[in-house]
Amino acid sequence: MKLLLFLVSAAGLLLVATPGVFGDEGMWLFTNPPRDYLKKQYDFDATPEWLEHVQKSSVRFNSGGSGSFVSPDGLVMTNHHVGADCLQKISSEKHNYLRDGFHARTRADEHKCTDLELNVLMSIEDVTERVKAAVKPDMSPDKAFAARRAVMAEIEKESLDKTGLRSDVITLYQGGQYHLYRFKKYTDVRLVFAPEQQIAFFGGDPDNFEYPRYDLDMCFFRVYENNKPAKIEHYLKWSKSGAKDGELVFVSGHPGRTDRLATLAELDYLRDIGFPFLLQRLNRLEVLLMAFSARNEENARQARELLFGVQNSRKARVGGLAALLDPQLMARKKEQEKKLRAKAKEDESLKDARDAWDRIAKAQKIRADHMHYFTLLEGARGGAAGFNTELFDIARTLLRAAEEKAKPNSRRLREFRDSNLESLEFQLFSEAPIYENFEKVKLTDGLTFLANELGGDNALVKKVLAGKSPSERAYELVSGSKLKDVKLRKKLYNGGKETVEACQDPMIELARQVDAEARKVRKIIESEVEEVQQQAYAQVAKVKFALEGTSTYPDATFTLRLAFGQVKGYEEDGKHVPFETTFAGMYKHSAEHHNREPFDLPKRWVERKDRLNLKTPINFVCTADIIGGNSGSPVINRQAEVVGLIFDGNIQSLALDFAYSDEQARALSVHSAGIVEALRKVYDAEELAAELTGHK
Amino acid sequence: MKLLLFLVSAAGLLLVATPGVFGDEGMWLFTNPPRDYLKKQYDFDATPEWLEHVQKSSVRFNSGGSGSFVSPDGLVMTNHHVGADCLQKISSEKHNYLRDGFHARTRADEHKCTDLELNVLMSIEDVTERVKAAVKPDMSPDKAFAARRAVMAEIEKESLDKTGLRSDVITLYQGGQYHLYRFKKYTDVRLVFAPEQQIAFFGGDPDNFEYPRYDLDMCFFRVYENNKPAKIEHYLKWSKSGAKDGELVFVSGHPGRTDRLATLAELDYLRDIGFPFLLQRLNRLEVLLMAFSARNEENARQARELLFGVQNSRKARVGGLAALLDPQLMARKKEQEKKLRAKAKEDESLKDARDAWDRIAKAQKIRADHMHYFTLLEGARGGAAGFNTELFDIARTLLRAAEEKAKPNSRRLREFRDSNLESLEFQLFSEAPIYENFEKVKLTDGLTFLANELGGDNALVKKVLAGKSPSERAYELVSGSKLKDVKLRKKLYNGGKETVEACQDPMIELARQVDAEARKVRKIIESEVEEVQQQAYAQVAKVKFALEGTSTYPDATFTLRLAFGQVKGYEEDGKHVPFETTFAGMYKHSAEHHNREPFDLPKRWVERKDRLNLKTPINFVCTADIIGGNSGSPVINRQAEVVGLIFDGNIQSLALDFAYSDEQARALSVHSAGIVEALRKVYDAEELAAELTGHK
Repeated sequence: MKLLLFLVSAAGLLLVATPGVFGDEGMWLFTNPPRDYLKKQYDFDATPEWLEHVQKSSVRFNSGGSGSFVSPDGLVMTNHHVGADCLQKISSEKHNYLRDGFHARTRADEHKCTDLELNVLMSIEDVTERVKAAVKPDMSPDKAFAARRAVMAEIEKESLDKTGLRSDVITLYQGGQYHLYRFKKYTDVRLVFAPEQQIAFFGGDPDNFEYPRYDLDMCFFRVYENNKPAKIEHYLKWSKSGAKDGELVFVSGHPGRTDRLATLAELDYLRDIGFPFLLQRLNRLEVLLMAFSARNEENARQARELLFGVQNSRKARVGGLAALLDPQLMARKKEQEKKLRAKAKEDESLKDARDAWDRIAKAQKIRADHMHYFTLLEGARGGAAGFNTELFDIARTLLRAAEEKAKPNSRRLREFRDSNLESLEFQLFSEAPIYENFEKVKLTDGLTFLANELGGDNALVKKVLAGKSPSERAYELVSGSKLKDVKLRKKLYNGGKETVEACQDPMIELARQVDAEARKVRKIIESEVEEVQQQAYAQVAKVKFALEGTSTYPDATFTLRLAFGQVKGYEEDGKHVPFETTFAGMYKHSAEHHNREPFDLPKRWVERKDRLNLKTPINFVCTADIIGGNSGSPVINRQAEVVGLIFDGNIQSLALDFAYSDEQARALSVHSAGIVEALRKVYDAEELAAELTGHK
Repeated sequence: MKLLLFLVSAAGLLLVATPGVFGDEGMWLFTNPPRDYLKKQYDFDATPEWLEHVQKSSVRFNSGGSGSFVSPDGLVMTNHHVGADCLQKISSEKHNYLRDGFHARTRADEHKCTDLELNVLMSIEDVTERVKAAVKPDMSPDKAFAARRAVMAEIEKESLDKTGLRSDVITLYQGGQYHLYRFKKYTDVRLVFAPEQQIAFFGGDPDNFEYPRYDLDMCFFRVYENNKPAKIEHYLKWSKSGAKDGELVFVSGHPGRTDRLATLAELDYLRDIGFPFLLQRLNRLEVLLMAFSARNEENARQARELLFGVQNSRKARVGGLAALLDPQLMARKKEQEKKLRAKAKEDESLKDARDAWDRIAKAQKIRADHMHYFTLLEGARGGAAGFNTELFDIARTLLRAAEEKAKPNSRRLREFRDSNLESLEFQLFSEAPIYENFEKVKLTDGLTFLANELGGDNALVKKVLAGKSPSERAYELVSGSKLKDVKLRKKLYNGGKETVEACQDPMIELARQVDAEARKVRKIIESEVEEVQQQAYAQVAKVKFALEGTSTYPDATFTLRLAFGQVKGYEEDGKHVPFETTFAGMYKHSAEHHNREPFDLPKRWVERKDRLNLKTPINFVCTADIIGGNSGSPVINRQAEVVGLIFDGNIQSLALDFAYSDEQARALSVHSAGIVEALRKVYDAEELAAELTGHK
């Protein structure tokens, strides 16, 4: 693999139109796209109108993916595995939509999702100066963190009051810039169509992140307003031909997180501590969920989406860890860092940045010391690892809401800021099913993990276990908690501090028992790691701007970005891997594996093989710069017409977390022609195909 | 669960015939069986003749299980999962005997095993005095360890020279006693019969360690001498009726390891460090092997036996860890330890033992500090975790053999002592297949684990990886090594030090690179942990003898033991679990799971259902005290006739590692009647059934 950041550093920086990046690299802000490069390299003019149209046609799935409007009647296209969160929640022992698929033949049949929120980015405003002005240089990290949190909450609240739109201040370039994003929010989202998981995820875990691939990883929703399909001004039209070899394409979506600016010290941390510890957790969860699922079909159904997520993360992290353990990649990063530090040293205007790398290195030590405790007690997205049950997350949200809402907006934990409350309540009051037995199994494992990490004689562990074994305690907590009842949640949430304080629900009592410790470690991570990093990285970014110019893009932050590239195969082990695959290849791939799970095809696909034009492409690859979170992004051509649907990257793309390459790393898409062929010939979904293509 | 050691401690110790143990507890030495208790409780006289007959009918599988002679023509009965090691090794892409089973209809068809060694215990001699005399009280742990190793090697060598029998000095009561065991060795072992793995392991991982169960977990081998079936004097006859409810039964087998004498400090170590770290490894291996197996059938075949072993260990360890995290069990252990320490304090003759607990506690700290490094570089059975490939094990054995064989017998690493060389060579020169791709995948994971544990910048990690990523390095090592060739191994082994030193095989070079470090950490574990523990536990055992009398049994050591108990159901969640299951129940269990994997039945069993007497028992439970290693043990009645075949324990039995209970913990057996019914009606194996039962 060729790692392009190294080539750039080694070759000097003045030769290409977008210094600091290379070729088709970049997850670009819509406010700062590589217009010159696109013009020069591809003779394409990304006009403001074109950009606005694409931006407003793009949809963020708050459950963790991307999508796009594909009809004037609110039709949204995404991946099956992005829709899976909804599919799981609306399924039951009787209807397994996640496994078997779903097809609403009329609008009346469209199935309302439980708690799915979609966001569309409506406007972007640079608020860097105001945020930076609030944080004085002489503030302690602790104070600086509080001041920044306060000014961001204030800006968001003002914007919400003024526009009624969801308003988030986004941190870009690790603190180099702050932008206010306003989103139109859709919470009445209905499922229109999903194929069988078998064909959406054909090849299963073994084929995940591999290419050639043959996955029909698609899913369609429709957004409603006032109980009617929403009227959408900006939506993407369907390409007549679909993606062609060599074609310039764009990907508009929400890459979740990259670490390309990360210093060596942070990469070392990720390599030796962050990734290994995360993988240790993923391995134990995968084994737990596999064993639970193997017991019977209903268990398997309940655990299905979570298990997919765990396996997917595991495979991605194994790939990321392999990149971090590649001495060549690390050598290039070292070279790059040397240049940045030299620049800071020689340029008097950058003198404040000179010790930024050391400050980051110091923060990694604190991070290493507290990360296990933080993961167990507080956790990032996905909850506290030591209390692995949705009921604990609910209990803690209720407990904290009572405390936080009583404080002024600017001093609350960030998730409780006024501008976020509506979304938070939408999740908290979700009617998504909670399965007692499943929660018991997860919590038993969580409590065991807690005891293993902290030691059986640790005071907190003893307090939490209350003289019982992890399984006994988990059973008593899950059986005893009444928080499965959404009405009770509403009562507690609206009742405020007194009501929650009087509540003796065992799960709330547990949350209460550990909250002081959880907040303490969160504060350490926020003020001694994140804040220090934020300030230091902002300075590193400044050095980078000074060296490479500002025509660059920030690390991914699960906000809207534009990537571009060419539809293009690649060489691997001396063989050419063609840019696209076809239905014919899919049937062959299945046969080569004796049609055995996970290489078996749904019955409908076996029976209807003859109806299909087997030459129709199903998947293709391109060089666009994507990462997790881009799933479901539309792939469009110069005319902003849909030619494909991002669903994965190949194994080589897993290094993209740290550095872009277009040699072998590829983004994988479902081909637009395959989507329509399947809808018409396999699913008899003529109405949906017509809505997409605009004609019968 | 009722934990009997607690009851004994609490109730005083003078009421039962075998003080210190309770009811059907005990993995008894054949030289010290509970004759009085059996007489009093069951009116059974375990005469020396009866004991000798059972002892010599019992067989140890050196691959890690038990078995028994069941005909005068050398027929050996064990479990399918004990035979799996051989079944895996003699299988190929064309013949998957492990999955599909095997049946030799004539003696000529019996299939020779690759490297299976069976041992039969012929004599037992107490050599405690001689061993203890060699270790002087004023020796440093280092010296004491060397002195003990030397005298043991000397005794073994003398015995081997005198008798020609495999001779092992066995450490009992953690160093309280030393016995010289002489074994007759069989190395020409041939496979006679194995059913499909599907029926042997019906219910798979979900049903493993569960009851009710329906597994035909059986396998038959025959030992040969001079190319003819061996003539066997002591073998077990077949019971006409098989196991009956309430009946007294005996289990003669080789329990692998228990920790019942373990002090609180060691239990804390196991709970907080030993078990969690082992489980972390098992989880990563399970995920690795599952992912590898899912890619295609041939991968699945290659990884099958290892994956079973990993899943089996994982489930057992999860159960063991749950026991350690049960505060009630720990409280009982605490109570017990208090009594022992009080006894040592009050009894002047035990004054040397007074600080034994503290010495053990100190050793646990050293163990905790070095255990990760030891596991990675040296490892116990199963090889060095950081170099997870059979080729490394072979390379290291060759490297060390050259060094060790040049030393006097008494000063070698224990596995290279003269009396063990024949068995070592038998393994080293095994023609068992080695699959390059599989070895690469395992080694990549091992090297990654090494880097994660020690850190990517660790000097040893850098040396080992040689500037490459783990996968690149693993590929180059496995592809480059010529040690797959047994002829080369023989040449290197017989060539001695010079030949090996000149050898540039990359795997030998790797072994050479890490050997100094590996030996260093092994020495720390041996002299600062094992030796200290050995001396201290010998003193704890002395206190125990003083308190409870010597009518007790030592912790398990993978040597022959006699257990006993009653065939008996139990109560669980308010329901009675009957003592036996039947073929009818098996078909029902399959149907309840929609005959889906792993609850599907082999085709033959579906087709021949009508031929079977469905009331025939297939599995049953008894209260005998067993643990891992007992798999394949015969279950016999008072007349020493086979009534069953041990193959598992229930979930409650997983706490038996630390304390016996007969309330719910049960040993699981295949019923003798089910074995014969299946052989006759399903497999048309009349000749085998006749050989077992002695009549057509």
